[in-house]
Amino acid sequence: MSQKANKLVNGRHIGIIGAGLVGAGWAIVFARAGLEVKIFDAAPNAAVSSLSLIRSQLEDLHAFELIDNIDGVMARMTAVETLQEAVTDAAYLQESILEKVEVKRRLMEELEELTSENTVIGSSTSGIPASAFTQGLKLAGRTLIAHPVNPPYLVPVVEIVPSPATLSEAVAFTDALMQSVGQSVVHVRRETQGFVLNRLQAVLLREAWALVEEGVATCEDIDKTIRDGLGLRWSFMGPFETIDLNAPQGVADYARRFGRLFQEIAHSRTHEQPWPDELIAEVEAQRRTILGQDQLNERRAWRDRQLMTLAAMRNKKEK
Amino acid sequence: MSQKANKLVNGRHIGIIGAGLVGAGWAIVFARAGLEVKIFDAAPNAAVSSLSLIRSQLEDLHAFELIDNIDGVMARMTAVETLQEAVTDAAYLQESILEKVEVKRRLMEELEELTSENTVIGSSTSGIPASAFTQGLKLAGRTLIAHPVNPPYLVPVVEIVPSPATLSEAVAFTDALMQSVGQSVVHVRRETQGFVLNRLQAVLLREAWALVEEGVATCEDIDKTIRDGLGLRWSFMGPFETIDLNAPQGVADYARRFGRLFQEIAHSRTHEQPWPDELIAEVEAQRRTILGQDQLNERRAWRDRQLMTLAAMRNKKEK
Repeated sequence: MSQKANKLVNGRHIGIIGAGLVGAGWAIVFARAGLEVKIFDAAPNAAVSSLSLIRSQLEDLHAFELIDNIDGVMARMTAVETLQEAVTDAAYLQESILEKVEVKRRLMEELEELTSENTVIGSSTSGIPASAFTQGLKLAGRTLIAHPVNPPYLVPVVEIVPSPATLSEAVAFTDALMQSVGQSVVHVRRETQGFVLNRLQAVLLREAWALVEEGVATCEDIDKTIRDGLGLRWSFMGPFETIDLNAPQGVADYARRFGRLFQEIAHSRTHEQPWPDELIAEVEAQRRTILGQDQLNERRAWRDRQLMTLAAMRNKKEK
Repeated sequence: MSQKANKLVNGRHIGIIGAGLVGAGWAIVFARAGLEVKIFDAAPNAAVSSLSLIRSQLEDLHAFELIDNIDGVMARMTAVETLQEAVTDAAYLQESILEKVEVKRRLMEELEELTSENTVIGSSTSGIPASAFTQGLKLAGRTLIAHPVNPPYLVPVVEIVPSPATLSEAVAFTDALMQSVGQSVVHVRRETQGFVLNRLQAVLLREAWALVEEGVATCEDIDKTIRDGLGLRWSFMGPFETIDLNAPQGVADYARRFGRLFQEIAHSRTHEQPWPDELIAEVEAQRRTILGQDQLNERRAWRDRQLMTLAAMRNKKEK
C-alpha cells in the first residue's frame, strides 16, 4: 500500500485543511499509508490539539492490530501554523472545514493564489456540490468532492464527485490515491443531491420513520430487521449482489419475480412533508428508553470498537 | 437455549410442513436448539431427501464451530410420511410450502381437521397475509406469519405478523419460542404489504436501480457504497441507532439537522412504473461482467461462508 501511494505523490505531502473529527480521520488515513501529512486549521491551536486526538485513535487501532507502529504514523504528521505551509507544493489537499458554501468559497479563493496546477483538491462535504464553490475559479478543473464516512480509517468508502468543470485527470489521480491508501472508491458521475450514499440512506430512513409513524413497527424492531437480517448480507455484498444471488438465474430473474411488488411498495409512499414534530418526539422517546442521552458517547466508543473488529476480520481474510 | 425451548413446548415436537430449502433451514433452527422435529412434504421422498441436504449444512456449521454435535442434531429430526404424523400433538407448526394463496388455504383446511387448539401455526410466506388463507377457519386465532430470511439458521431475523384474527397468546408463544431457539423477533403489528423487511429493501433497491438508470453510478459502485460504507454500521446497529449516534444530541437532533434534506431526496423520486426491460438488461449485463451466470452457485456458497464467519464472530462476543 505505502509504496504505491508514495509513488503517486512523488515525494510531495498531503495537506489537511480543517482539523476537526473529519480532518483528523483523514490525516490518519494518509499517514497510516506512509505519506507525509501537514495539518492546518484556521482556529488557533486546533491543529496542534488534533494531534492528541489522533494519537488516542491510533492507540485504539493498535490495540485491534490494525496498525503496527503508533510513533511511526505520528512522525509523519505535522501541525502547521499557516494555510500556506499546508498547501504549498502539496500533491493533494483534503478540505474538511465548515459545511457552508460561502466559507468554502473563501477558502477556494485563497487556494487559487496559494496552489499550483499540480495540486488536486478534494472536499469532504456531504452535501454541497463542488461547482457551488469553485465556479469561475481556475482551480475548478482540479477540485472535486471526496466524501468520506466517519471515521474514514475504519469505514473505507469515499464518494468521488466531479463538478462539470473537473478534469478527468483530477478524478483519475484522486481515484488512484484513495485506492493506494486503502479506501474504497465510489464514482458519482453527476452532482446529485445527497450523492449516492445519503440518497440510499434517505429512502430507507424515510420508510423506516413512516413505519414507526403508522405503528407498524418500533424503532428497535426496525433496527433488528436490518442488523439481524438485511444488514448482515449488505455488510459484505451490497444490495445488487444480494439480489443477484437470490433468484435462481440471477438479477434479471429477480427483477421479473419481484419487480412489480417492489414498485408497488415504493409507490405506496409519498413524501410530501418532512418528519412531523410528534413523530420526532416519538422516535426520540423510543431511543431514549433503549439508550440514555448520557450514554451516547459510551455507545459511540462501542460502535467504533465494533467497526475495528469488522476491519480486523477483513484484514485477516485478505492476508 | 435448549432448556428454555424444551420447557416451552413441554415435551411436544415441532412440525415442519414443506421440506424445501426454507423448511430444511427451519428444521435446523429447531433441532439445533434441542427440540424434536418431524418433517413432512407432500411430494414423495422430499422429506427423506431433505435430510441429506440438512446433514451437509450441519457439516458446514460444525466446520465454523457453530454446532458441537452433528449426529445429535440429526437424531432429533424425523422425516414422516403423512401430514397427520407431522402435525398431531405438535406444539408449533412451521409451514413453508408453495407461495400460492389457494395452496396454503387448502393446507389450512386440512390442519383445521388435524390439529387441536394447542398447536400454533406459523407461515414462512414473504408476501401473503395470514388473513388471506385463514379467514373463516377456527385455526385463524392460532395462525400467524413467521417470515424468515434464508438461511434462518445463519440470519436470525424473523418477522411475526398476526392477522386481525390472531390471538395475542399465539403471538406471545411464537415470540417466546423463536427467541428460545436463538432467532431475533421483529413484531409487524399490521398486515402491511411486504411486511417490514421487504419494504425497507424495496425502497433502497428502487433508489439504487434509478441511480443506475440515470447513469449516476454503476451497480458495483452502489454495492461498494453499502458494503464498505452504510452496511458496515447497519450490520450491528440498524438505521435508527446509527443516526442516534450520528448527531451530538441524538436522534431528534439528527432529524432537525437532516430531516429536510432527506425528505427532499425521497420526494425527488416517483415510482410510477416497474423497472423497464432495458434497465433490467443493463443491470444484468453489469452483474454478469463481475460474476458469470455459471459462477452464481459458487458465489452463493461463498455468501454462506461469510454469514457463518459473522455468526461465529457474534457467538464469540456473546460468550
